[in-house]
Amino acid sequence: MSQDKKRDAIIEAALKRFAHFGVAKTTMTEIGNDLSLSKASLYYYFPDKLSLYAAVLKHISEATEKKDEAIITSKEIPLEAIHTYLDIRTDFIIKYHNILEYLKTYTPLTMPPELQELFSYFYSRELSRITAIIEKGKQQSVFHISDSRKTAELFFDFLEGFRYSFITRSGNFFPDKKQFLTILKKEKEFASIFFKGLS
Amino acid sequence: MSQDKKRDAIIEAALKRFAHFGVAKTTMTEIGNDLSLSKASLYYYFPDKLSLYAAVLKHISEATEKKDEAIITSKEIPLEAIHTYLDIRTDFIIKYHNILEYLKTYTPLTMPPELQELFSYFYSRELSRITAIIEKGKQQSVFHISDSRKTAELFFDFLEGFRYSFITRSGNFFPDKKQFLTILKKEKEFASIFFKGLS
Repeated sequence: MSQDKKRDAIIEAALKRFAHFGVAKTTMTEIGNDLSLSKASLYYYFPDKLSLYAAVLKHISEATEKKDEAIITSKEIPLEAIHTYLDIRTDFIIKYHNILEYLKTYTPLTMPPELQELFSYFYSRELSRITAIIEKGKQQSVFHISDSRKTAELFFDFLEGFRYSFITRSGNFFPDKKQFLTILKKEKEFASIFFKGLS
Repeated sequence: MSQDKKRDAIIEAALKRFAHFGVAKTTMTEIGNDLSLSKASLYYYFPDKLSLYAAVLKHISEATEKKDEAIITSKEIPLEAIHTYLDIRTDFIIKYHNILEYLKTYTPLTMPPELQELFSYFYSRELSRITAIIEKGKQQSVFHISDSRKTAELFFDFLEGFRYSFITRSGNFFPDKKQFLTILKKEKEFASIFFKGLS
């Protein structure tokens, strides 16, 4: 196997274990055993579980990136597009619930650099998607705003604040799948009002 | 002095010290000394600093309650009313910054019962104010919504989420007065869009 292929195989094996047993309960040894890989060889690619975890997160979030973007872009009506965006995000969380749950280990202040970097990439990707949706409404003369990016930032700040506060208040537990559907319902109501107002 | 008057005097003395030196740096002994009160006498009214702190919070938030409500109610245009509501809230935080800073000691999960009770009172008061504003818009046929209370809850969830996330992300420090003005600016933009939409 080439180095790249070996690296991909490790990520795939880790993904399976993380998804099935959770991240906390999975050891590097188990992942190495799954691939009949020596410890030295495994650690050559990923010096610790955290760096492997970050690689898995990157892998799963990039896997459907283009497809997701195409689906969102295909929606001509901004409100439909933003609801689709929210649906896709929640589908992702529910699909990889066991993997994402591990993020609860960290707060924004204790987040290690490997994950911080990833999160700032996610942040800019989400923000571009929302900006594109709002810009579409502006181009269609449905939205009368001066700066699509700034409006998207405001939308995202309040959306993220709501999610973050919901997740933090739920204590040491990551919300379960059903709770994420409750969050989604509120997010959609919020998006509808944000786009259309109360009148 | 009657028991009630003595209690009020203790609250006033604590308020002065808390506002001037901060809560963490103020001791019960100092407050007792200010009033030439014996330790036993002081502890008869307030068994610990936390119960005195809760009493001070209650006192300052009730002091202008009726006046604030009258000002908000006098605004006929819902958007003006909600901006005034947000102004009043920020004025309060800035005025009592030294006292409120101490709340940063707790998270929603470690909040002691004395403060939890107070916060659920604040929560219902804020929610009534927002509901009244939205209901006014509904009565004026400016807002076309079915349930003012539910709409107010949604507004408040996202508003509080934004504030909470801002305060938490700022680490172990309570945001300074200038930062609260930045928060206020975003809150007003948010309220404008929530009420009027993007069109």
